[in-house]
Amino acid sequence: MKDVRVGICGLGTVGGGTFNVLNRNASLIEGRAGCTIRIGRVASRRQNDRIELGDIPFSNDIFDVVNDPDIDVVVELIGGYDVARELVLAAIENGKHVVTANKALIAVHGNEIFEAAEKKGVIVAYEAGVAGGIPVIKAIREGLVANRIDWIAGIINGTGNFILTEMNAGREFSDVLKQAQELGYAEADPTFDVEGIDAAHKLTILASAGFGVPLQFERAYTEGISKVTPYDIKHAEMLGYRIKHLGIARRREGGIELRVHPTLVPKELLIAQVDGVLNAVLVDGDAVGQTMYYGAGAGDEATASAVIADIVDVARAVSHGSTQRVPYLGFEPSALEDLPVLPVEDIYSAYYLRMQAEDHPGVLAKISSVLSEHGINIESVVQKESELSNGKIPVIMLTHTVQERQMNQAIAELEALADIDGPVVRIRAENFS
Amino acid sequence: MKDVRVGICGLGTVGGGTFNVLNRNASLIEGRAGCTIRIGRVASRRQNDRIELGDIPFSNDIFDVVNDPDIDVVVELIGGYDVARELVLAAIENGKHVVTANKALIAVHGNEIFEAAEKKGVIVAYEAGVAGGIPVIKAIREGLVANRIDWIAGIINGTGNFILTEMNAGREFSDVLKQAQELGYAEADPTFDVEGIDAAHKLTILASAGFGVPLQFERAYTEGISKVTPYDIKHAEMLGYRIKHLGIARRREGGIELRVHPTLVPKELLIAQVDGVLNAVLVDGDAVGQTMYYGAGAGDEATASAVIADIVDVARAVSHGSTQRVPYLGFEPSALEDLPVLPVEDIYSAYYLRMQAEDHPGVLAKISSVLSEHGINIESVVQKESELSNGKIPVIMLTHTVQERQMNQAIAELEALADIDGPVVRIRAENFS
Repeated sequence: MKDVRVGICGLGTVGGGTFNVLNRNASLIEGRAGCTIRIGRVASRRQNDRIELGDIPFSNDIFDVVNDPDIDVVVELIGGYDVARELVLAAIENGKHVVTANKALIAVHGNEIFEAAEKKGVIVAYEAGVAGGIPVIKAIREGLVANRIDWIAGIINGTGNFILTEMNAGREFSDVLKQAQELGYAEADPTFDVEGIDAAHKLTILASAGFGVPLQFERAYTEGISKVTPYDIKHAEMLGYRIKHLGIARRREGGIELRVHPTLVPKELLIAQVDGVLNAVLVDGDAVGQTMYYGAGAGDEATASAVIADIVDVARAVSHGSTQRVPYLGFEPSALEDLPVLPVEDIYSAYYLRMQAEDHPGVLAKISSVLSEHGINIESVVQKESELSNGKIPVIMLTHTVQERQMNQAIAELEALADIDGPVVRIRAENFS
Repeated sequence: MKDVRVGICGLGTVGGGTFNVLNRNASLIEGRAGCTIRIGRVASRRQNDRIELGDIPFSNDIFDVVNDPDIDVVVELIGGYDVARELVLAAIENGKHVVTANKALIAVHGNEIFEAAEKKGVIVAYEAGVAGGIPVIKAIREGLVANRIDWIAGIINGTGNFILTEMNAGREFSDVLKQAQELGYAEADPTFDVEGIDAAHKLTILASAGFGVPLQFERAYTEGISKVTPYDIKHAEMLGYRIKHLGIARRREGGIELRVHPTLVPKELLIAQVDGVLNAVLVDGDAVGQTMYYGAGAGDEATASAVIADIVDVARAVSHGSTQRVPYLGFEPSALEDLPVLPVEDIYSAYYLRMQAEDHPGVLAKISSVLSEHGINIESVVQKESELSNGKIPVIMLTHTVQERQMNQAIAELEALADIDGPVVRIRAENFS
């Protein structure tokens, strides 16, 4: 099966991440894509010292990638409007597929780019332009095709969300912005992020894919977060709301709403609890109802995840003769691993334990001692003195993670103690950290 | 461009939903798929009086669908193991693509079915088998291909989640189960749901697609929720945890964990707040980190959404000569609508308002009167008497939804009042209901 050769233009944060993930997970990706994805050429204004180029040709001229006859897919990661537009149009003209992370380019020049690509019969994919590694463009263009989409709302700029999350703790905007810049979450010129322009780029794309309308970024309404005060945050909270910088696109009679602005959201909704640099997109479809997509909206490897998903989409499209584009389990049959399901005794978990114990000194020490002998550390203990009954009280514990086998043995020993009455209730606990 | 003809086997909840959504959204779906999707034949044990068959051939023998030479895609919605397996294998043998919602079938017979399908070069798609309309299989098999997936966890059975959510309010399991059955959220024999078997079917599929391992349902560990008590729920809550019926699949050295059981989850995590019949799947990938997919895990139209997404995947694969499988904006260019972006004055929103008002009787009445004249209803008012300063106090209001134009006019009038000092702060509010 034919290799698919990609050329990466731009070796900044996302370019570096893409390069590294493609290499680190090369055989995994090959097992899924059904073909080898080779980095054929890389071009950037300057080198990135966090990547090892090895033998891969490097140049300072990104058009070398576009003009290289061996490159099948041009990955545009330089950002910006003008040179990126030229680059992408030239790639299309040369019959190459394009994968981009450039939401600004697509929001402003997408109509023109898609028209050119359609004439040439090449793919232009842009998952990485919206909500980082969360596959939300795929969800809307493919997963939700059965639905009339009525509205889409999203926390789609991590910088703004980080700032508002910190302000929720009572801090002032300018103070948090400074910290965001120090942490690398905001640029020296943070306008695109805090004024909502970046979010509007992304919302424009979401709205077009959701409602089936041409991209109309210039008509999007944007309002930034610089005028949100801790006072309003506090009073919104008092009324039961969090303030988020939301992009909202809504289909209406005769038009669509396309707006980015600070928005009060009921605090019990999941989207109100999406904090820090995380993103979430909520989509309302007439058949499925509301679905939400949540995860890292930015970051070198998070965005690379979306870039590479698009590259693999292209690879699966070009390298399969048959219609069987995606292998049944997402992996080529030859790439499946024969990993056995482990017996439950082999799993690792934390545990909630509850037992009826004699209410006298030393019992807790005995219980702790049994657990400790089996390598089980205790996180919390609650003794319910108030529920004393027949000389016994409930003792409730939360342990740290341990192998189930150890826990089974510890429980058997505890149940054998004279001080413990009846079985030990055990419920597994999970922190996902 | 060639029509794609589907045959629906089974006209129960999901079959009826699929039929209805395919008809209701026919032109929308055609605009996205780039071809017409016709229901060529329907077969079921009994008719479904919630659907209008019209001219579509109906029979009681589901094998009529499989043997109909004009059918391209067999949609298997009968459920169960044995007949469904025969049906699907026969469809494959006849060179037809298969779309199914049958998690039990795939979990138990998937290895055999995929092997047969691969030999014949036909698609077998099963998005609707896991997490209803949430496109999570697509996320894992396509959106997250760049990642080594380390674990997957999910609330993937709505019945169990509904029951635990109600028990969280202090109710007993058997009492809530009865209500769930009355509401149609649980079967007369609820074993598959409350004992975790249904969740284990789905988890088996998620794990195989995530880790690239053959389906091994028979080795999954399952533990139901019937022994969870209000007492433990209360004490888990006290310790900072909710109890959810989780499926957890984790890659480990030399094997995978595959388990379904009640699990304590920290209550501040989003997944701990997924309530009622909703589902959520959390996936951990080495590049993108944790992503979460949330929405309706069951229901006639929610599941139909996933069935149809798969049908359109097949249609896009078979009816496009070129590699351009998914149109750029998810809609064929000829199907794009020229809907203009509305000016912001035309949008509808609720509002948070804050103003400095003279602290004397009648001012609140004046403010309310101005709002009411513009059709603006007030949801809440807070007057901050404690912040009296220079004879003025902050007045904070939350309004109901109104058109922005009305709000602009109302604000202009309020700012013109002598009783109001300075500008009115306005922040839009959104309930997503």
